[in-house]
Amino acid sequence: MFTEILREVVEKTDGAIASVLMGFDGITVDTYAPGESPFDVETVGMEYSVVLLQIKQAAEMLEIGNTTEVAVQAENMTTLIRLLTDEYFIALAIQPGGNYGKGRYMLRIQAPKLVENLT
Amino acid sequence: MFTEILREVVEKTDGAIASVLMGFDGITVDTYAPGESPFDVETVGMEYSVVLLQIKQAAEMLEIGNTTEVAVQAENMTTLIRLLTDEYFIALAIQPGGNYGKGRYMLRIQAPKLVENLT
Repeated sequence: MFTEILREVVEKTDGAIASVLMGFDGITVDTYAPGESPFDVETVGMEYSVVLLQIKQAAEMLEIGNTTEVAVQAENMTTLIRLLTDEYFIALAIQPGGNYGKGRYMLRIQAPKLVENLT
Repeated sequence: MFTEILREVVEKTDGAIASVLMGFDGITVDTYAPGESPFDVETVGMEYSVVLLQIKQAAEMLEIGNTTEVAVQAENMTTLIRLLTDEYFIALAIQPGGNYGKGRYMLRIQAPKLVENLT
């Protein structure tokens, strides 16, 4: 069920490398990583899970409502993250030049299906 | 000099609220905030400066190169951040429904001018 959605997000986003559904505690629910990805998507998720907790706290301090989306662009990889519930997020790793906008769109339209199955 | 660039970024981005040029130590170089912004852009920058240091560390751990851009979307505000040098970043606060893509573009094209004057 989760794997199908993770696969769809990766396959429909040009330049996508892998996706991971993870808890903010850094524990993986499911991943999809075709081919020989240069990055371990679970490690990516774990590194960002710590950062996401800080971002959630910053948004609370600033009283700007719940955080819905975070994107981090680095020279060799862009990571798009959609916060799903208080406990889970989905992250999509994209290579440079990949379709950032399509990735955001795919995460947005798949989010309700994931939330439905997580709660 | 910095004010002019900060102003241009805000004025040319539909829905932009304010911009700030800041050090990763949370100390403001300059800001531009027209009208009665509901948020203090310096506070926004300070909250995110801590997060940015963690993101830089995560990217180093993951060996994905330097972080260039971070975007955080919350229900009531989107914050676009462009990392300029090892010491400074620019952040642009946009209201919901504002032009996210134009904001990213404006930060990208203005970044070299800021870097030139910061180093």
